[in-house]
Amino acid sequence: MKHYPEAMYRLIRQFCKLPGIGQKSAERFAMYLLSAPDTEVAALSKSIGELKKQVTVCKTCFCLSDQETCAICRDPGRDSGLVCVVESPADMAAIEKSGAFTGVYHVLQGLISPMDGIGPEEIRIRELVARVRAGTVKEVVIATSTSVEGEATADYIDKALKSFEVNVTRIASGVPMGGELKYIDQVTLKKAMEARRAV
Amino acid sequence: MKHYPEAMYRLIRQFCKLPGIGQKSAERFAMYLLSAPDTEVAALSKSIGELKKQVTVCKTCFCLSDQETCAICRDPGRDSGLVCVVESPADMAAIEKSGAFTGVYHVLQGLISPMDGIGPEEIRIRELVARVRAGTVKEVVIATSTSVEGEATADYIDKALKSFEVNVTRIASGVPMGGELKYIDQVTLKKAMEARRAV
Ligand SMILES: [Zn+2]
Ligand SMILES: [Zn+2]
Repeated sequence: MKHYPEAMYRLIRQFCKLPGIGQKSAERFAMYLLSAPDTEVAALSKSIGELKKQVTVCKTCFCLSDQETCAICRDPGRDSGLVCVVESPADMAAIEKSGAFTGVYHVLQGLISPMDGIGPEEIRIRELVARVRAGTVKEVVIATSTSVEGEATADYIDKALKSFEVNVTRIASGVPMGGELKYIDQVTLKKAMEARRAV
Repeated sequence: MKHYPEAMYRLIRQFCKLPGIGQKSAERFAMYLLSAPDTEVAALSKSIGELKKQVTVCKTCFCLSDQETCAICRDPGRDSGLVCVVESPADMAAIEKSGAFTGVYHVLQGLISPMDGIGPEEIRIRELVARVRAGTVKEVVIATSTSVEGEATADYIDKALKSFEVNVTRIASGVPMGGELKYIDQVTLKKAMEARRAV
């Protein structure tokens, strides 16, 4: 038995694909939108539809950007000789919020995962090596997760940069083993950044 | 400091308006959509944009419908002489899921709430009285919430229907199934005790 019009069910099914959203929440979202102002609903629809067109990745660090080169890479106040390697834009945002980092980033596209067929070529490690080869990078701080894959990716990067004149460090103290960076509180992240040491 | 492009922040702010959604969830939704298939993102945008155009209310019972008259009101197998009064489409859906009701509905637009300036005129009680006046309704089951406002609305409806030849009943209140007595509030317990009946 159908209790709602088909358009409601379709939207509810689509909301259910969002991370962490089940049937009840999806139903509440649809109900909310039915009674929300027309302009608000239209704006949400438009923002979702145009998101991918308006968001690109920085050609230098691969973070999310609305320009070819992101605001951080363009900022002369940031130390371009200090590069922090993260596995996602969300992790980068988390470190930025902590305010503990004044360098620039290199945003990987995830982590090396042989089980899923994801090798170093797939996650922009080659682009990182090229940045280091260019010669202006003094230190690479590897801030991947402390999961098995995060550690393996950090090891791989460390070896890949062995032959260059660059300090390779690892974000360390304070991040619990198995923890995902984007869910860690800002104080812990700040401490971990300050306590970084040679790999 | 901005860590994402403006289009991301705009979408995150809009997601935050959905019921129960905070900054973290909104961020995860936006990140998810960035990496979701284009067709899925476009479909979600379209469904939201067209929702209000495709969903209307039944002219008889005021439940959500994609036609002038809803599927339940059109169903000859439903008892149109038995009308259940609920305060929202979601409550109607909950009763339908229970499978315990074979009549039709009258969906109010909320509850009477003098504090918020919502009187009986605002919530379609007049339309309910008109349905009863038409003469085919035998019983009205009032299934509004057991909150103060739900009870007050039920009382109002009961009085408004006094002069008609119709049975007005109230959905039973008491201890919910699976509920432990020690956690039930006293008002509920009192009602449940007063409404006790032979096993
Ligand atoms: Zn950049
Ligand atoms: Zn109807």
